This record gives sequence, structure tokens and C-alpha cells, in this order.
Amino acid sequence: MTRTFVFGGARSGKSAHAEALAAASGREVVYLATAQAGDAEMANRIAHHRERRDGSWTTVEEPLALGAALAQWTAPGRVVLVDCLTVWLSNLLFCERREYPEIGRIEPPARVARERAQFLSALEQARGDVILVSNEVGMGIVPQGAVSRWFVDEAGRLNQAVAARCERAVWVAAGLPLVLKEQAC
Amino acid sequence: MTRTFVFGGARSGKSAHAEALAAASGREVVYLATAQAGDAEMANRIAHHRERRDGSWTTVEEPLALGAALAQWTAPGRVVLVDCLTVWLSNLLFCERREYPEIGRIEPPARVARERAQFLSALEQARGDVILVSNEVGMGIVPQGAVSRWFVDEAGRLNQAVAARCERAVWVAAGLPLVLKEQAC
Amino acid sequence: MTRTFVFGGARSGKSAHAEALAAASGREVVYLATAQAGDAEMANRIAHHRERRDGSWTTVEEPLALGAALAQWTAPGRVVLVDCLTVWLSNLLFCERREYPEIGRIEPPARVARERAQFLSALEQARGDVILVSNEVGMGIVPQGAVSRWFVDEAGRLNQAVAARCERAVWVAAGLPLVLKEQAC
Repeated sequence: MTRTFVFGGARSGKSAHAEALAAASGREVVYLATAQAGDAEMANRIAHHRERRDGSWTTVEEPLALGAALAQWTAPGRVVLVDCLTVWLSNLLFCERREYPEIGRIEPPARVARERAQFLSALEQARGDVILVSNEVGMGIVPQGAVSRWFVDEAGRLNQAVAARCERAVWVAAGLPLVLKEQAC
Repeated sequence: MTRTFVFGGARSGKSAHAEALAAASGREVVYLATAQAGDAEMANRIAHHRERRDGSWTTVEEPLALGAALAQWTAPGRVVLVDCLTVWLSNLLFCERREYPEIGRIEPPARVARERAQFLSALEQARGDVILVSNEVGMGIVPQGAVSRWFVDEAGRLNQAVAARCERAVWVAAGLPLVLKEQAC
Repeated sequence: MTRTFVFGGARSGKSAHAEALAAASGREVVYLATAQAGDAEMANRIAHHRERRDGSWTTVEEPLALGAALAQWTAPGRVVLVDCLTVWLSNLLFCERREYPEIGRIEPPARVARERAQFLSALEQARGDVILVSNEVGMGIVPQGAVSRWFVDEAGRLNQAVAARCERAVWVAAGLPLVLKEQAC
């Protein structure tokens, strides 16, 4: 049983790499999508991703309760491919903003913290292979808005927490994978 | 005959690394520049790059028709150094904006697609060494404007397409090169 | 005697990695902090960093004259940990803005240049181990403001200059270190 973290910048080829890993496993694949088609641009991006995927895969959409979904779908002999963690975090942040106007502080609001803890726990207890796709968003200039800085901080912390719980971590740039972590299972 | 893709962030030392590779080849070098001196800042940047280059190199400037220029200049025993692909893409985007106001969609406008296809074809058919410099722009926070997101997407896709067609790919950070791809020729 | 450059994006785990290196050395550690608690958010970030550090370390705060501080504190058998260079550069830029409104040009203002030269000289002459933490800020989209572009350029150049003077350079992403440079001492 192997957990693989695949991360990189926008259009780095990280999703395609993760999908190739899942396809090469020869196992049943459950594709756990976190994106919601809120506008035409996002619908277009989702359709673009969907075209590339194998028709035999089961697609599950879960924008918020990712930990519960992962716990439900992980199983021996099956690969769960989660794409992507950054969109999930963004969904959590966005739906929380009315409740938490003071979001500039460093500690995350309660729901984000709860969902994250549940997700990390589900990841630790995974019963089958998991491949997790995430964005690197912290290598540009520090954004001016407090919400953007909060998001960069949370995304970076999430990536660290997930990478620490995975046996393998692969960084992707220009479509080229680089293994940053490889643990004997 | 080797195609080398050199990429990295702003002021990562990617151009200096590419120039060192070209100089070390001991061959005739044609420097294919895509930047135009549109304002004082850009003129300054270009002058800064020019100072560093070997006086014996031939400099060719081509902001838009890069595929045609590459096809014209590539030759056995000669190195063509293209600096850089991201500025070229930006030139294409900028000159297209009047014609294509709906540029937020994912598919690129016709001219960008045509120029890109021509460039990739010229790269595949290169008759001598080619060194290509490009920017990584997708590792910061997702930009808010639709045009910026479009640009990040196109730049990332271009980097993937070029890296796939090169025998070698080198990522540069803080002036330090890291080989991500190395194919026996 | 080893100089180690540790760099990565925001919340990449670079500070934690640098602190682990310092702790693992078994030597006396001087923590040279460049951040100032100008507002609640920054105070919070500083407190967060401070909690993680060993109570036996000596903490020195120097927002501007980093070269003088490094020259003063470096000593055989001692590790000086500088966190971080990007905040230092930002402090220099911010205090200079009133004097240098034309900051969009490429050459840095006189004080930044002077402080930087003094710092690089102190680094070259270090008499004990030095660990330097810095941010990668140039892998996102090119920022629109001239000051931001200037900052990205200066930060990138500083990273290159420091990495060139260090025996080791480690890139950190998602908490995972990757050695980009390793020189026999």
C-alpha cells in the first residue's frame, strides 16, 4: 500500500502524471474530484481533465468533506486518485468567508481545521493506494491581500502535512517528474 | 545534435546557464532574442543581457515568428540559443488582444496556435543544437485576472510541449542547475 | 566550516529544515532574525517561529545591518542561523523608498548595494558555520508593479550570489529537502 503525493505549479503536468501512475497500477481506480463547475472557465477545465481520463474509472465529486470521502472509498486493491487538494482548500476557505470575516489571522477557522484533521486521519488510515495531487502556490511574490497570504500559508502547510504522511513524493515541472521522497514500504 | 530546455523563475540564472552551455560548445552561436525594447525598463534588461554575451555571437531578433526564425537559422555545427519562450508567448498574446477580446477561454486564439505549431515543428526538425530558455510562472498563487490565468496556462503547456521534444531539460534555481531529463542521443 | 543555503517557497518548511540542521550540529547556535514585528500578523508569524526554536539558542535581531551582525557573531565552533534574507531585503527596500522614488530602474539604490556588499563579504569571511534561509519569489507570474518586479529581481540576484558563496545549497518544497549543491570542504 503506497501513498503518493504529486505536486507542482499550474499546468506543470502534475495531473497527467498522477493519472499515468493510476493507469499503470493496473488496479481499479476511483477518481475523487474536488472541483466544482462554478463558472464556464472552471467547467471547461474540468471537461479538459475528464477527456483525458480512462472511461472505466469511477468518478466521485466531493468539494468539502474530502476526509469522509477518502475514508469511504479507500480499499485494498483499489487506487483512489484525489485531484486536487488546493482546490479543496479553496472551497473550504470560500464557503467560510461569510462566517469568518477576520480570516487574516494565522490560525485557520474551525471548519477548515476540522476538515483538515479528518482528511489527514483518513490518509493515515488508508487501506489501499492513494495518489494525491496538489498545487505549489508559494514560489511567487508574497501576495498583497491578507486572504491570499492566508491561503498560501494554509496550502503550504497542507502540502507539508500530506507529504510527511506519504511514502512517495513527486515534484513535477514542465511535465517532468522528480522524486523527492521514496520510502521502502 | 541535442535540444536543451533550460527553465526557472525570474532571476534564477537560467539565461546565464544557457549562455554558458552555448559558450562551452565551442561552436558558432546564433542568439535568437524574442524581447523587444518597448520601454526603458525592458531596454535596460536587454542591455544587461547583451553585455554578458560573447561578441562573436550573431544576434537575431524575432518577437513573433519564432518557428520561421528557428527553421531558418538551425544548422549542423551551429548552436541556436532562444531566449526566451515566455517573452515570445507574451508578445503573441499582446498583439492578439484586440482581435480576440474573449481571451479568457482555454483554447488559444488561432494565431497563437499557428505560431506555436510552427515553432514546435521547427524544433522537431532542428538540424543542429538548440538551447531554449523559458520561465516558470505557475508556482505562485493563481492570478485573479482571466488573461493572467490564460497566460499561466499557455506558458505551462508550452513548457511541457518543449520539454517533451528536448533531449535534455535543466531546471535552474538560485543559479544552480538541476538536470530533470537526460536522453542518450 | 560550512555555509549552507536553504531556500524554498512560502511555508515550504525551509525554516524548520534550517533549524533542524542547526540543532543537529550539536554546536552553540546564534539565531539571527531579520523580521520586525511591524503589525499583528507579522508578530504572530514571529511568535510561531520562536516557539519552535530551542530555548538555549541566542537570538539576535537585526533588520538592516545584516553584514555587520554576521561579522560580529560568526565564530569557530558556533552556528549562525540567518532567517531570512528575503525579509532583510524587503526591510532595506522599504526604508529606502522615500529616498529613491525612481526605484523601477534595474540597478539597486546605493544603500541596498552597500549593505549587500558588506553582507556578502562577511559571508565569505565567516569563521564558523552559517546557515542562511531565503525565499524563492520568482516562480509566479511576473508582477505588474515596477517595485514588485524590482524586488523579484533583487531577491533572485541575492539568492544567486549567496548560493555561489555557500558550500551547500538545499531547496525545500512541501517540507522535503533536495540538495542542489554539495562541495567537499
